[in-house]
Amino acid sequence: MKLLTFRSQGTVRWGAAVDGGIVDLARRLPGIASVKALLEGGDAALQQARAALADARPDLQLADVQLLVPVQQPEKILCIGVNYAHRNAEYKDGSTLPQHPSIFVRFPDSFVGHGEALLAPPESQQLDYEGEIVIAIGRPVRRASSREEALAAIGGLTIMNEGTIRDWVHHAKFNVTQGKNWQGSGAIGPWIVTADEFTAGYGQLHLTTHVNGELRQDDTTASLMFDFAHLVTYLSTFITLKPGDLIATGTPIGAGVRFEPPRFLKAGDRVEVTVDGIGTLSNPVRDEEVLR
Amino acid sequence: MKLLTFRSQGTVRWGAAVDGGIVDLARRLPGIASVKALLEGGDAALQQARAALADARPDLQLADVQLLVPVQQPEKILCIGVNYAHRNAEYKDGSTLPQHPSIFVRFPDSFVGHGEALLAPPESQQLDYEGEIVIAIGRPVRRASSREEALAAIGGLTIMNEGTIRDWVHHAKFNVTQGKNWQGSGAIGPWIVTADEFTAGYGQLHLTTHVNGELRQDDTTASLMFDFAHLVTYLSTFITLKPGDLIATGTPIGAGVRFEPPRFLKAGDRVEVTVDGIGTLSNPVRDEEVLR
Repeated sequence: MKLLTFRSQGTVRWGAAVDGGIVDLARRLPGIASVKALLEGGDAALQQARAALADARPDLQLADVQLLVPVQQPEKILCIGVNYAHRNAEYKDGSTLPQHPSIFVRFPDSFVGHGEALLAPPESQQLDYEGEIVIAIGRPVRRASSREEALAAIGGLTIMNEGTIRDWVHHAKFNVTQGKNWQGSGAIGPWIVTADEFTAGYGQLHLTTHVNGELRQDDTTASLMFDFAHLVTYLSTFITLKPGDLIATGTPIGAGVRFEPPRFLKAGDRVEVTVDGIGTLSNPVRDEEVLR
Repeated sequence: MKLLTFRSQGTVRWGAAVDGGIVDLARRLPGIASVKALLEGGDAALQQARAALADARPDLQLADVQLLVPVQQPEKILCIGVNYAHRNAEYKDGSTLPQHPSIFVRFPDSFVGHGEALLAPPESQQLDYEGEIVIAIGRPVRRASSREEALAAIGGLTIMNEGTIRDWVHHAKFNVTQGKNWQGSGAIGPWIVTADEFTAGYGQLHLTTHVNGELRQDDTTASLMFDFAHLVTYLSTFITLKPGDLIATGTPIGAGVRFEPPRFLKAGDRVEVTVDGIGTLSNPVRDEEVLR
């Protein structure tokens, strides 16, 4: 299933993308209030959703709704830094490969949905893109004791443009929080593809990022230093991962800042992150208008 | 007012601490579901709460309830690193004073309430304390354009023991997320004292941390490199601060890791963080029991 959250006629609803449009599952399953609630409901809720989809025809066209971040108000959005093997070399600091994942956090308001404009704020000229595959947790997990347990906690996958204000990443001695949390600087979507659809596993997922049609990032999850099972296991060591929590698994080489000179985003650009088996997250860029 | 959240007879409720106990405001103000909702309600809701308290006698004794983190499920918990001036020198890396605050993020589950045990996990021997003053946002603010606007966004103050697993802070190249987010490793409470009670402002607040009665941290907010107005202004540059959001404003010198040899916490210890005008946050330490 392709689970999505959308705004239609002023209300926020959830459903599934199917051939020909969207099936409104909020209406068909009134006991399940959101994609997060569906994930919290586990296998039983997923079965209800599949049953409701089986004989359903689309209620809405994708073009008629505003897609939102597929999980609204996740408790945790954990982002993994420097995870594609070539990325560590890209830093050119002579460091050896890391022993553990680097982790930072983003807040929900730093993201828009598929199709909405990424905001280039007036305080910086350095809005950059980072295409990423995102794990959506489907089952609570703490201290996963096997790869199987870790993988079983994955409810599905979605896509992130982990939009970054580069100069603000370097504002402080430690941590990158402020450069990674500008309101509306990133995007998540268009939907969560449920785990059952990844029958070949997560080891060969292909990600590309295009800016105005030009290929900028191109790699597969075979290059990950820390694969999905490793990430879930490591994160669950210190905190319980819960349904709806999101884990952005890192970006390949080729962000705008790595070019010489850097190629940052500007108003009118369009960024498309595509992952085979999930879809394409596409967003234009616009200058943020600040009322003073 | 001293706003608190507590569990009593299996349900989570909110109220105010008064002489002689707790007034159950959840019962008296059924339209306001939580401390977060009260803050979201702004001045009108605060007035309702004050009116309800005016002729109220305590419903419960503090000893009869379990205090929880005063704001449940805040959207954001932002933590400021290295903010007391002496702390930068404590790092002994020869660096000059920072230009901007260092910011990291903690998740709600990394905290317990006043009186509950801090958990020392089996994966580390390095649970450490950090006493901090916490701003609770009372009014939404983005791009605060004056110190007055920034200060007006402060709804009240509470206390944090920003418990840290030291060896996990150094797991990765950037960021401290994993050392700062062990489940139940920190505490927040006992309550939020509303902003109107700080008639002398926030410039001379006195914080101490004691471990088993021994003084370990002792400083005032006069030592802050980035004061409360500066922090709210800076953070609100990139993201909207909302009612219930928490900002931990940094810890003075004297955490356990700074002693030679380091003095980490162990089961049976008690940590007390006291801030004049707020109160004392007191927590015992126990070893976490992990079921395998």
